[in-house]
Amino acid sequence: MPRNRQNEDSILRKISDRFPSSSWKAGQSIALGIGDDASLFRPKPGHETILTCDWFLEGTHFLRRHPPDAVGWKCLARAVSDVAAMGGTPRCFLLSLALPETHAGRWLDLFLGGLQRASRKFQCALAGGDTTRRNEILINVTVVGEVPAGHAVLRSGARAGDLVYVSGRLGEAELGLRILQQSKGAPSNKSPLTKKHLYPEPHLALGQWLAKEGLPTAMMDLSDGLSTDLSRLCAASTVGAQLHIIPQVQLQDATLELGRDPLQLALHGGDDYELLFTVPPGRAKLVPNSFRGVRLTAIGRITRNRELLLKKNGRVIQLTPSGWDPFRE
Amino acid sequence: MPRNRQNEDSILRKISDRFPSSSWKAGQSIALGIGDDASLFRPKPGHETILTCDWFLEGTHFLRRHPPDAVGWKCLARAVSDVAAMGGTPRCFLLSLALPETHAGRWLDLFLGGLQRASRKFQCALAGGDTTRRNEILINVTVVGEVPAGHAVLRSGARAGDLVYVSGRLGEAELGLRILQQSKGAPSNKSPLTKKHLYPEPHLALGQWLAKEGLPTAMMDLSDGLSTDLSRLCAASTVGAQLHIIPQVQLQDATLELGRDPLQLALHGGDDYELLFTVPPGRAKLVPNSFRGVRLTAIGRITRNRELLLKKNGRVIQLTPSGWDPFRE
Repeated sequence: MPRNRQNEDSILRKISDRFPSSSWKAGQSIALGIGDDASLFRPKPGHETILTCDWFLEGTHFLRRHPPDAVGWKCLARAVSDVAAMGGTPRCFLLSLALPETHAGRWLDLFLGGLQRASRKFQCALAGGDTTRRNEILINVTVVGEVPAGHAVLRSGARAGDLVYVSGRLGEAELGLRILQQSKGAPSNKSPLTKKHLYPEPHLALGQWLAKEGLPTAMMDLSDGLSTDLSRLCAASTVGAQLHIIPQVQLQDATLELGRDPLQLALHGGDDYELLFTVPPGRAKLVPNSFRGVRLTAIGRITRNRELLLKKNGRVIQLTPSGWDPFRE
Repeated sequence: MPRNRQNEDSILRKISDRFPSSSWKAGQSIALGIGDDASLFRPKPGHETILTCDWFLEGTHFLRRHPPDAVGWKCLARAVSDVAAMGGTPRCFLLSLALPETHAGRWLDLFLGGLQRASRKFQCALAGGDTTRRNEILINVTVVGEVPAGHAVLRSGARAGDLVYVSGRLGEAELGLRILQQSKGAPSNKSPLTKKHLYPEPHLALGQWLAKEGLPTAMMDLSDGLSTDLSRLCAASTVGAQLHIIPQVQLQDATLELGRDPLQLALHGGDDYELLFTVPPGRAKLVPNSFRGVRLTAIGRITRNRELLLKKNGRVIQLTPSGWDPFRE
């Protein structure tokens, strides 16, 4: 048993010392932070509140050998990405954390360091949460965001003829994960691929800009892989899609073996947190080739026919949703 | 492997079929429910948004032999109780659920049945959530509520001289748990004590009435036991308290053995979800003896001296926080 026994209140104090919500700009929407029965959020007049929550579980979504500060960064980044996908602005979050007593010291400090960096970067203040003890590390993050009423971009607005776009290159995070799995000892976060897996950057500015310009008819973020997520967007919009090009992860010498089929990585690899969106053909000329250094690529078209098709080497093949699904082996 | 394989989307469909949020009154505050990247909540003008989340984990907060519909009821009731403790009104909730594939059939149906009953009872609509697969059942619930701006009752307002009140009798849920632990086979929910453990009723109407009348200087709900929770209220208000009477669980013949020391149960037993509040002496006459059949008892006074004291058989003894703490054995 460690000498300095932790209890629930002392862990809460550690967290609240780290996140003095009143001291910085993003905390202004919080009328009451950690330490009471609940938190109080001041909604902005004329805005709707975006609510989203995400599991981040040891063994399912990360491993104990993942750097604790990457766990802290990513648990918030993933949920913030859902706000980006609606064109919204994150305001605050609730952290539910269960961890072994052995992890309430150094591990917790490093975890909170990564979480704090993400919180400042995304201007999303810690408003409250719940902590308990558990043999495994369990995390659940609820993010609260805002969007001018009626201006959120949903998954359900795509129409036949719309162009389908993605930001960035797909499959990078999946390849980054494979590099980490192969590496012995502590994972390196030097490579841009492992960095994309460990410290994803939700496309907040891009989502907000697209929504403000009124360009997308539908939008979502890519968390489970293009084949799975595009099939969800199409189901929500009762349409299909035909793709002709996929911006793929670039293979360096060191990654040739691990990323043997970059198209498969790009189609089914998870955790990219790129944006997938559809734009009516008449407005496509308003979509730039890149936004703040991030490539935007038209990858295909929405079809009336409710199938997912991919044109490859002159042939059209059916695309089966094969991204990440926790209920599939 | 079960014949009808479940995947994440089919579990989501099962949940959304059960909670057609647009079809009833409590759903009116939800502009967009399950199925998109996030949910959209319409805040009421002039109100602050109450945010609270709670773990409800197999092995920590409930056992696999607990009735699934009680698990469904209680996971929402516990978080709603935090809204009651601020004098607020629940509006909607997010459900994060991780469960084994074996539990995605009948167990999930019964769980959703209990959750649905609680959702209707508390007028708190399902807005969204996240599901994944896991060997153990993990639940996290975020509840969103509202309160007129500036009118939430916090833990931090108690002043020396205020009277300390509790609703109901304390220790009942703890004794109900002991009865269940002793019973063989399926737990009975016939006894009011086991019912209080399995299907707690947050005191929403009482909390709202007290807040509206402006009576409490501080308020919280009793989830971890009076000794622990009162010490938190006192710490937040930088005061102490001296208690002289505790409304205790009544022992029937059948429970005499299990509840040998009702005072200990009342002081340290968790899960009662009664309200603890403080009222200035000049306004105490406005607090009725009971509210809608629930007893309200003045149990002591707030003191300047930052200790918790209990007058017992003419002697004053120090009260140590000894309620439920997951980080204590």
